[in-house]
Amino acid sequence: MKKLSEMTHEELLAFKNETEKQYLDFKSQGLHLDMSRGKPAPAQLDLTMPMLNVLSADDTLSTEKGLDCRNYGVLDGIPEAKQMFADVLGVKPENIIVYGNSSLAIMFDTITRAWTHGLLGSTPWSKLDKVKFLCPVPGYDRHFGITQYYGIEMINIPTDENGPDMDMVEKLVSEDASIKGIWCVPQYSNPTGVSYSDEVVKRFAALKPKAEDFRIFWDNAYCIHHLTDSPKCILNIFDECKKNGTENMVYEFMSTSKVSFPGAGVAVLAASVENVEYIKKGLGVSTIGFDKINQLRHIRFFKNAEGLKNHMKLHKNIIAPKFAVVIDQLEKNIAPLGIASWHNAEGGYFISFDAMKGCAKRIVSLCKEAGVVLTGAGATYPYGNDPDDSNIRIAPSYPTVEELTKAMELFCICIKLASAEKLLEK
Amino acid sequence: MKKLSEMTHEELLAFKNETEKQYLDFKSQGLHLDMSRGKPAPAQLDLTMPMLNVLSADDTLSTEKGLDCRNYGVLDGIPEAKQMFADVLGVKPENIIVYGNSSLAIMFDTITRAWTHGLLGSTPWSKLDKVKFLCPVPGYDRHFGITQYYGIEMINIPTDENGPDMDMVEKLVSEDASIKGIWCVPQYSNPTGVSYSDEVVKRFAALKPKAEDFRIFWDNAYCIHHLTDSPKCILNIFDECKKNGTENMVYEFMSTSKVSFPGAGVAVLAASVENVEYIKKGLGVSTIGFDKINQLRHIRFFKNAEGLKNHMKLHKNIIAPKFAVVIDQLEKNIAPLGIASWHNAEGGYFISFDAMKGCAKRIVSLCKEAGVVLTGAGATYPYGNDPDDSNIRIAPSYPTVEELTKAMELFCICIKLASAEKLLEK
Repeated sequence: MKKLSEMTHEELLAFKNETEKQYLDFKSQGLHLDMSRGKPAPAQLDLTMPMLNVLSADDTLSTEKGLDCRNYGVLDGIPEAKQMFADVLGVKPENIIVYGNSSLAIMFDTITRAWTHGLLGSTPWSKLDKVKFLCPVPGYDRHFGITQYYGIEMINIPTDENGPDMDMVEKLVSEDASIKGIWCVPQYSNPTGVSYSDEVVKRFAALKPKAEDFRIFWDNAYCIHHLTDSPKCILNIFDECKKNGTENMVYEFMSTSKVSFPGAGVAVLAASVENVEYIKKGLGVSTIGFDKINQLRHIRFFKNAEGLKNHMKLHKNIIAPKFAVVIDQLEKNIAPLGIASWHNAEGGYFISFDAMKGCAKRIVSLCKEAGVVLTGAGATYPYGNDPDDSNIRIAPSYPTVEELTKAMELFCICIKLASAEKLLEK
Repeated sequence: MKKLSEMTHEELLAFKNETEKQYLDFKSQGLHLDMSRGKPAPAQLDLTMPMLNVLSADDTLSTEKGLDCRNYGVLDGIPEAKQMFADVLGVKPENIIVYGNSSLAIMFDTITRAWTHGLLGSTPWSKLDKVKFLCPVPGYDRHFGITQYYGIEMINIPTDENGPDMDMVEKLVSEDASIKGIWCVPQYSNPTGVSYSDEVVKRFAALKPKAEDFRIFWDNAYCIHHLTDSPKCILNIFDECKKNGTENMVYEFMSTSKVSFPGAGVAVLAASVENVEYIKKGLGVSTIGFDKINQLRHIRFFKNAEGLKNHMKLHKNIIAPKFAVVIDQLEKNIAPLGIASWHNAEGGYFISFDAMKGCAKRIVSLCKEAGVVLTGAGATYPYGNDPDDSNIRIAPSYPTVEELTKAMELFCICIKLASAEKLLEK
């Protein structure tokens, strides 16, 4: 195969016509597949079904210390759950609040509190003329959705294989007091799959922001979602913060949404004791407590941090072959043509794909017309605006290997077609 | 027994001395009892234990229409749950959002959204110079906690056996555009136990507030919590609103916290379709969805609205005798002395007790010193300030009948002692 950029006009036309035929052939097959979100496959959910049997009518629903999980009380989570998540994140139970089912809801709640009441005595963000957030791109659309909801100005930060551009981050936060936060998915980023290098984590912990109420939103959603047998975990940011006296600067988030059940899992926040105490004061106004029975269910099923991690190996066995399908097809069908790049993630839920500039929307639209729904082009950028119209988030987890293989064949055809169209425009 | 007010100084002194002896005797018994909150008793929680068996590893966790409750999706609740709660509240499923475990959290969330983003296009409350709420008193401390958190000025509204003083409510809301809401517990009020009369409900639905974004927070927490066999339910406020074209003025709330498990139940909001659509837009920024498996668990266990109501009869059998203990002891020990009044509730979780002016704090404090913790005096008023220092909320649900009997003996002694002290002051 020849690179598309090296083809003559006639060769390109012929390539386009041939690809178009393949596309129409696919379209006639009437596929129906939704790959828009990072949803676990039914086979993964089946792994957690035995959890439904760990609490039955004959069991005592009490914690080790005799707290009845059925009744009211306990704002910050049952001790066993706090311990388990503290162990996963490498902090102490006093640094943990166990919430309900959604880490997104925790992030929203945390920003809302800063918006209405400020942080540890600072001015509420709603009372400031301008509030800005740094957004490493490509990133997670639901993060951007929260900051956009509050009218917070989002500033794109480029990322590479080590994480965000820390020169830019350091410069911006040290100069501009209106920059109040940064969205980070430090391990197996959504969507790039990149894990932050040790240097990047150290530089985050050593930030000297102009705003005293600047916070790093460390969404460690995929911290135990490995796709290899010898995963390299990122540095523990709280350990690094301790060296710099910056423990108050970080909020860390994770959940079991993609470990147990999405929507019926348990989500947690980790933060300094000072932050935890402040948050609990506000949280106690809004609720008496979260679902302790579900916390207990998770504890009885997973036992501890080790149990959680072991369970993830079963997920890996289901997901890893799907990532392989994506990468194989791209390597085979697209790599020789020199029209795109992608990142082979070692964990998480996504493969980030970069088409030729100006092709992402067209590719997603072509796929959709042929029955395969991808994450919307642009969704990985604040305001849905990918300045290069290049990035597409591939979410391979939900379909079966057979469906995914079919979908990737179509995806590759759409890449070729959109790229040929673009080159012929010139 | 003679009324205290009719006693001579010497009689009163003797009465006080005698009561003091009884008190010291109780104190020496070293009681330990927390009656501060409306918590269901373990025996009530036991009623719901079979719910833990309705979903097991072998079951299909899908709705009737085949939606997999284990995975992401569905912001407003599974159809079966929406139908069940719509039937309980007498509305349509399109009027329902099923949330997570806490109706308090829904109320907080709803006020927060009004605070940061306004309602249906109105100015966010945070941008107004002044926001006020009407608070029928005595009322629920956690309601007042939310409005206090946002610095909303709370205005006391007196209540009687028919509900709030509607002359005052009508006058205030029609004149003052800064009044944005009112807290109501319309059936078996917390703490008075009063159910709003038909006329009061009709007058609420016919309110003509000056503020277009005025909302009635209709916390129907106890709508199915009857203590008699032939309960009288309040009018359906949405039916009345339809007659007045005021459907957008009401948010109704309920939960299964005291039906299934506190903290592991399901909470709902009912509102006009326009309000529901607006709320869902904001809600979708903060979460992908609530715990659908727990919603399904409730549906499989209770089946439908009828099932929920039938289950409440089992609760009644446990709670009603406790209410009887409270009333019996008050009738026997306090009524003849003419030093207090109370309301014999036909449902809900509380008995509202009014001591002589200036005695509530002293009574609660005396009880506490002798090992029985009551809801703090003043808690039933905004800012914790009962101008008469008179009201005490009695929460008889949690203790056993034996414990409660003991606690009420102590309570009556403390009432007598505090009253005698007060009369001797004069």
